[in-house]
Amino acid sequence: MTRKWLVLSAASSFLLAGLSIVTYADSTADPHAELSPIFGVALPPGYRDWQFVSIAQENGDKPDIRVILGNDIAMKAYRNGTLPFPDGAIIARLAYKYESSVRNNAVFGRDQSFIAGEPTNVQIEIKDSKRYANTGGWGYGQFENGKANKSEPLTNSCSACHTKLPHATDLIFTNYSK
Amino acid sequence: MTRKWLVLSAASSFLLAGLSIVTYADSTADPHAELSPIFGVALPPGYRDWQFVSIAQENGDKPDIRVILGNDIAMKAYRNGTLPFPDGAIIARLAYKYESSVRNNAVFGRDQSFIAGEPTNVQIEIKDSKRYANTGGWGYGQFENGKANKSEPLTNSCSACHTKLPHATDLIFTNYSK
Repeated sequence: MTRKWLVLSAASSFLLAGLSIVTYADSTADPHAELSPIFGVALPPGYRDWQFVSIAQENGDKPDIRVILGNDIAMKAYRNGTLPFPDGAIIARLAYKYESSVRNNAVFGRDQSFIAGEPTNVQIEIKDSKRYANTGGWGYGQFENGKANKSEPLTNSCSACHTKLPHATDLIFTNYSK
Repeated sequence: MTRKWLVLSAASSFLLAGLSIVTYADSTADPHAELSPIFGVALPPGYRDWQFVSIAQENGDKPDIRVILGNDIAMKAYRNGTLPFPDGAIIARLAYKYESSVRNNAVFGRDQSFIAGEPTNVQIEIKDSKRYANTGGWGYGQFENGKANKSEPLTNSCSACHTKLPHATDLIFTNYSK
């Protein structure tokens, strides 16, 4: 086996792996879409129109309010209580600035109303029990303005946090709200 | 015209009006579903699976966190910026108890996480510019555990509050979140 063949072979494998990752999230995904580091997750087309799982509010350094949506596979699993989630399940977390609403407060006559401001980022997790076996079957990505955040420490922090959850939850923070 | 005929005619009109209200919200609606007072609005079948408009959080006497969903007519209008909303648009507001998440806080290492607890109530507003001409074209209802709240003062408070909004908003609190 020559050195040239080895280089070609390695390049070919890399390309195939890359294509495989690009097309995994959705068969209609733009092959040029940016991918998250480490996991190679793309922003799934149409995620904004997915069905509703639940909502939350994080009062961290940058308070946000967030909705969790799921693709059809994820929603079916949520509704049926299927755990672990089957391969192909995708959960999207859309976060927005947590902002006081001057207009609503004027209507209600007291300061009580907080609404979603500008979007901050979207986080995606995709279940593939084989590809992501080392992280509990989940691959992660964070997207800002539709572009993948390329920070490896940030992307690793996704799985680091989710892995702290009880195994029985399939490493999922969010329960389905009726 | 005899007195008997008048009574029968009035009763017949009342029944027809009642049936019309029952079937308005959705042609597949259960004709026995409970209706809101004043407006005769039913809980639309399938509203839990509608698409996402936005989220909010109300820190009133009973803090809640809430999601706003829309039927296809409402979502199309939201996406296209169509105002006023066309007849047939329905907007659903699903509220849940606003609860600190002990589990999430343990994972994050600080008290910052609030999640949706038990559902509190669902509010529905339906656009029918003729039927609800006196309230800006919107009819309202509040539902708890799938049953209409029969309080007239509460139901009147829906339109009383929405009517305080600028006319240019078509009396809608919630903007579409991207």
